[in-house]
Amino acid sequence: MADIAPFHVMALLARARELEAAGRSVVHMEIGEPDFPTAEPIVVAGQRALAEGRTRYTAAAGLPELRQAIGGHYRERYGIEVSPRRILITPGASGALQLATAILINPGDRVLLADPGYPCNRHFVRLVEGEAVGVPVGPETGYQLTAKLVERHWDERTTAVLLASPANPTGTVIAPTELAAIVATVEARGGRVIMDEIYHGLIHGVPVQTALAYSEQVLVVNSFSKYYGMTGWRLGWLVAPEDCVGDAEKLAQNLFLAASTPAQYAALAAFEPEAQAIFETRRREFLARRDFLLPALRELGFHIPVTPDGAFYLYADCGRFTDDSYGFALRLLEETGVAITPGIDFGHHLPQRHVRFAYTSAIPRLAEGVERLRRAL
Amino acid sequence: MADIAPFHVMALLARARELEAAGRSVVHMEIGEPDFPTAEPIVVAGQRALAEGRTRYTAAAGLPELRQAIGGHYRERYGIEVSPRRILITPGASGALQLATAILINPGDRVLLADPGYPCNRHFVRLVEGEAVGVPVGPETGYQLTAKLVERHWDERTTAVLLASPANPTGTVIAPTELAAIVATVEARGGRVIMDEIYHGLIHGVPVQTALAYSEQVLVVNSFSKYYGMTGWRLGWLVAPEDCVGDAEKLAQNLFLAASTPAQYAALAAFEPEAQAIFETRRREFLARRDFLLPALRELGFHIPVTPDGAFYLYADCGRFTDDSYGFALRLLEETGVAITPGIDFGHHLPQRHVRFAYTSAIPRLAEGVERLRRAL
Repeated sequence: MADIAPFHVMALLARARELEAAGRSVVHMEIGEPDFPTAEPIVVAGQRALAEGRTRYTAAAGLPELRQAIGGHYRERYGIEVSPRRILITPGASGALQLATAILINPGDRVLLADPGYPCNRHFVRLVEGEAVGVPVGPETGYQLTAKLVERHWDERTTAVLLASPANPTGTVIAPTELAAIVATVEARGGRVIMDEIYHGLIHGVPVQTALAYSEQVLVVNSFSKYYGMTGWRLGWLVAPEDCVGDAEKLAQNLFLAASTPAQYAALAAFEPEAQAIFETRRREFLARRDFLLPALRELGFHIPVTPDGAFYLYADCGRFTDDSYGFALRLLEETGVAITPGIDFGHHLPQRHVRFAYTSAIPRLAEGVERLRRAL
Repeated sequence: MADIAPFHVMALLARARELEAAGRSVVHMEIGEPDFPTAEPIVVAGQRALAEGRTRYTAAAGLPELRQAIGGHYRERYGIEVSPRRILITPGASGALQLATAILINPGDRVLLADPGYPCNRHFVRLVEGEAVGVPVGPETGYQLTAKLVERHWDERTTAVLLASPANPTGTVIAPTELAAIVATVEARGGRVIMDEIYHGLIHGVPVQTALAYSEQVLVVNSFSKYYGMTGWRLGWLVAPEDCVGDAEKLAQNLFLAASTPAQYAALAAFEPEAQAIFETRRREFLARRDFLLPALRELGFHIPVTPDGAFYLYADCGRFTDDSYGFALRLLEETGVAITPGIDFGHHLPQRHVRFAYTSAIPRLAEGVERLRRAL
C-alpha cells in the first residue's frame, strides 16, 4: 500500500469545493473529465434498456452485440479485422488495464512506461508485485517512449512496455512509424506491448493508427469514457491476443463477473451515425479550446515545447514561476480561484517543474481562467 | 494465472444454451442470479438519473447520499452506528473484495477460508500473491468456520480470515455467538476478519447480526446484487475500519476511479419503503422455494444434512449417485435438461461428491426439474 500514491489533485479539488461552498468562483482546469454530458442517443438507449429489464448479468466477456460493434469499429476506422472473440468488455479502461497487467506480469517482472504518465498505470503493475520502471521522457521525444529508449532500458527482467497515445498528462501522440518500431523492438525481445488508446478519437490533424495494426500480440486498452463521453457509466474494453483470451475471460469472471449491463446496451448506440456526429462536433470543440488555450498559456510564460495533438490536456513547464508545482497550484487556487493539476501526480521526472491544464471547460471559462492567471503572474 | 481456476459451470451453461438453441427445454438450477428483474422503483430512479444527466464520475468513495443511506440501513436493521466516512461504494461486491484483500494482504500472507466456498474469494487473495488456505468444513459446523477451527489452523504467517454468511454454495449462516467468537479469536492474534455479507437480507427465521456489531476492525463486503436485485448494475460496498479508509480510498481511485454513477443514483431508491416491500415479498418467495425444493431433493436421495437458512442455494451430497460431480452434472444436463453446478467449482474438499442447486426459478419450474430428476435417477 505504501507504494500506491494518492492523487494529490484530490486535495486541491476538495479545497476548490470548499472555496466554492464559501461563495468563491473557481475555474476548473484540473479535471480530466469532459464537461459534456453523455450524448442523447446513448442516454435514450440506456433508458430503453432499463425499461426492457436489461438488469441482469451479461457473460463475463460482455454482450456479443457490443463486441461485434467494436469489431466493426476497427474495420471502419482503422481498416483492420479484429475478431469479436478477442474483444472483452470491461468496467472502464481500469478493468481492461487490470486484466492486461494481471495476465502478463509475474512478481518481479519489470514494465517500462513513460514518466510523466498516468499514475494508475504504474499502480496496476505494482498491485501484482511487478516493478513499473518510469523512463524519463521530455519534449525531444514528444514525452513518449521510442524504440531507442525501449532498447536502452530493456533488461533481462523486463517483460512488457506500457504505452499511451494520446497520453495523459501530455496529450501527445506516438507517430505510426515509431509505434510500429516500438512494437517490433519489444516483440523481438520476447516482450509484450500494453497499449492504452483511451483518447483515440480525440486526435486532431495527425495520422493515427491502432497498435493492433502492427501486431496481434499487443494488448489494447480502450474506453467509452473520453471520446464517447460515458465517464460515469464505467465501460471500456480490452483487445487480447488469441493466447490471452482464455486467461482474460477467467480473470474477468473472478475479478468483476461482468461490466454494467445497462451501460453495455447504452453503448451500442455509440456506433450509430447520430451519436458519431455528436462526438465529431465535440472533438472539434476540443480542438478549438486547445487552439485558444495553448498560445494564451505560452504568452503568460508557461513553456509548452510540444503542441499536443490529442486528448484534452496541456502539460506546461512552470519553471519560470516555481520549483514546487504543488505549492504553485495551491497558491493559484487560493489567490485566483484557478484549479490545475501539479506535475507530482504524474511521476518522478521533473514533476515540480510541471503542471497540467485540462481544457474540459468551454472557451469563455478558459478565457476567464487565463485572465485571472495573467493578473496573478 | 495457472492458480486461477475458470468456473466449470460456464462450460455447462454454454452447453445448456446450445441445447436450448437446438430446441431442448432446460431447467436452470445452476445460475446464482435471482430470476426477478430489478424492482420498479430502482429502475425508475435509474431512468430519472439518466434524464437528469447523472453520467459523470462520482468521488472514488461514492455518492455521499448513498453512503449516508447505507449508514442509516445499519442503524435501522442492526441497531449500530457506522459512519458514512467508513462506507465506500464499489463496482459490485467484487470491487469491495478486491479493496479488502489488496489492503490487508502482503505476498506470502495466509488467509483462512471455508472449503467449500465461493471460488473468487481465494482468487482475490492469490491475485495479490497471498495464500488462500481452504479449511475443510462439513455439516458438523454448518459448512462454516468456527472459532475452534480458526485457532487450529492459525499460524505465524496467517494474517486474515475470510468469512461468508450466508455462504455460497451452502446457504448456511454463522450464528451470532459463533461469529463474535471468531472475530475475537482472530483479533486476539492480531489478524483481521473480512466478512462477506452479500446475502444478508435473504435470511429466513434465524437471528442474524452484522460482524460490524462485534468489532470496528472487521472489513465488511456487501452488495446491491442479491437482496436488492441489482445484479447487472454492478454495485456493492465496503465498510472499512478507520485505519483502512485512507488506503481504501486511494486504491479505489487507482483501481476503478468510481462505481457506476447511474447505478448509485438508482440504488438510493432501494432504501425507500416501496422497494423494501418488494424485497420482502421476494424473500418470502425464496423461502417458499427452499421449502419446496429441499424435501423434494432429499426424497430423491440427495443428502442435505444441514437446512440452509439463507441465500438461494442447496448444497447436496450426491455420493449415492456418483463420485464425479462434473460428469454427473453433464449427464443430467444431456439426459434430462436439468442444469446444476458441480462441487468442483467450490474448492478441494469432497468436491466430486457434491452439487449445488440454485432456487432462482419459480416453483413450477423447480417442480419440473425435480420431476425430470426423479425419472432419471
